[in-house]
Amino acid sequence: MYIQYNIYTIKGVMTLKKISKESPIPLYYQLKELIQEQIEDEIFKPGDPIPTEMELCQIHNISRMTVNKAIMSLVHEGLLYREQGRGTFVAENKRKHQLNNLKGFTEEMMQKGYSVETKILSFETVEATKNKKEHLKLGEKGEKIIEIKRLRYIENEPFALETAWIPLKLCPDLDVKINNSKSLYEIFQRKYGYILAEAKQTIEPIMINDYESELLNLRKNSLALLFRRTTYLDDGQIIEYTKAIYRSDKHKYELILKP
Amino acid sequence: MYIQYNIYTIKGVMTLKKISKESPIPLYYQLKELIQEQIEDEIFKPGDPIPTEMELCQIHNISRMTVNKAIMSLVHEGLLYREQGRGTFVAENKRKHQLNNLKGFTEEMMQKGYSVETKILSFETVEATKNKKEHLKLGEKGEKIIEIKRLRYIENEPFALETAWIPLKLCPDLDVKINNSKSLYEIFQRKYGYILAEAKQTIEPIMINDYESELLNLRKNSLALLFRRTTYLDDGQIIEYTKAIYRSDKHKYELILKP
Repeated sequence: MYIQYNIYTIKGVMTLKKISKESPIPLYYQLKELIQEQIEDEIFKPGDPIPTEMELCQIHNISRMTVNKAIMSLVHEGLLYREQGRGTFVAENKRKHQLNNLKGFTEEMMQKGYSVETKILSFETVEATKNKKEHLKLGEKGEKIIEIKRLRYIENEPFALETAWIPLKLCPDLDVKINNSKSLYEIFQRKYGYILAEAKQTIEPIMINDYESELLNLRKNSLALLFRRTTYLDDGQIIEYTKAIYRSDKHKYELILKP
Repeated sequence: MYIQYNIYTIKGVMTLKKISKESPIPLYYQLKELIQEQIEDEIFKPGDPIPTEMELCQIHNISRMTVNKAIMSLVHEGLLYREQGRGTFVAENKRKHQLNNLKGFTEEMMQKGYSVETKILSFETVEATKNKKEHLKLGEKGEKIIEIKRLRYIENEPFALETAWIPLKLCPDLDVKINNSKSLYEIFQRKYGYILAEAKQTIEPIMINDYESELLNLRKNSLALLFRRTTYLDDGQIIEYTKAIYRSDKHKYELILKP
């Protein structure tokens, strides 16, 4: 432990950027960037403890409040995590997921060799609200939709909380049992013979609430990404609208941009 | 004002989902979803006040704490905003931005007819840190890079805070002045004749710090998206690595997914 801190002291203070009290950039922000670089440079590796707040105060000659602000900001972003009475540690590297492909979650993860499970929290046929009618481009008249809430696991760890809405007329005898392990996209294609053309997905940052943090087994008030996705068939019909919360403490999401 | 609340009471309580004390879903979460649907259904339009916390308590017969939790959660997500002493209001609809295209920010926004400005906060030539060498795939030897911090505006409102790192050898006489209004991508292509092949971009949710909230003119502790982008030339060289904070209270980001 001591040796590690000594190494940190040498590398951190002697060879890396110093915190400058002359800089217009706030001190805590400088410290945050410094720690972040040290993690990216693997001076601190996943699972390693970082120096205590007191040690950081002494090393950089800054106040405890400044140090705490920098650390909490990295905790919120999922780069560090704290354990009561044990200290602050570097989080595991995030798993990377590609966002460009119109692939079901299950398919994508299984192709990467991960074990994937889905737990169905609820499966209901309901009257479409005005809002859902708009999202699914349904007529004004009363139409029924299937609402499925699912919790998805990768390697036995909850990973995403998703609600899907599907027009009942497009999937008249969708069965909760069939659906438990298979991807919905696979069912649309194999069972119903639909051809999926494209999906539009918006991305927003959210702070999860207590209900979601319990289901996802995440710290309270964690940050996550909210994906809203509309999936279109080749004939232009909407087969599915989903709202899904993806945890971003252990996962990151990548896009390929083309000219 | 009173009329609006009455309408709300009728539509909100009589025709929309009720808050159910029997449901396993927490009350504040039910209220949050209810308000969110009312916004999406345009029962409350951008700029409209929503009922006060006290009124919501009475309408739904739930505690003040529950109401506050639901509202603060919507404030954090940017759907509502509060004004000291005035109340809580529905935020403007978010502007949608396409993420798939490898287009400079300036170009994309100008095509949409928005006025775009860029303020350069700093422009420096620095020694590449180990971290930046890795991101830019530079050799182990000392190499210089250009670091540009920019604040981007749409319609005179700060929108994104971006830092770009560019290998000096690829853009030897890049000029801070040229760069002020033009897109960097345009400079890479026009001034240097480079052909941009693709970019990889990761997306993470963050809580902005005080320094960033001041620059972006955002409430403290707002949520935003952090985009890290690596841009590749047609010969595989990396021309640019950027880290950018995009506000998500007034903007949303959309992806098209293809099979």
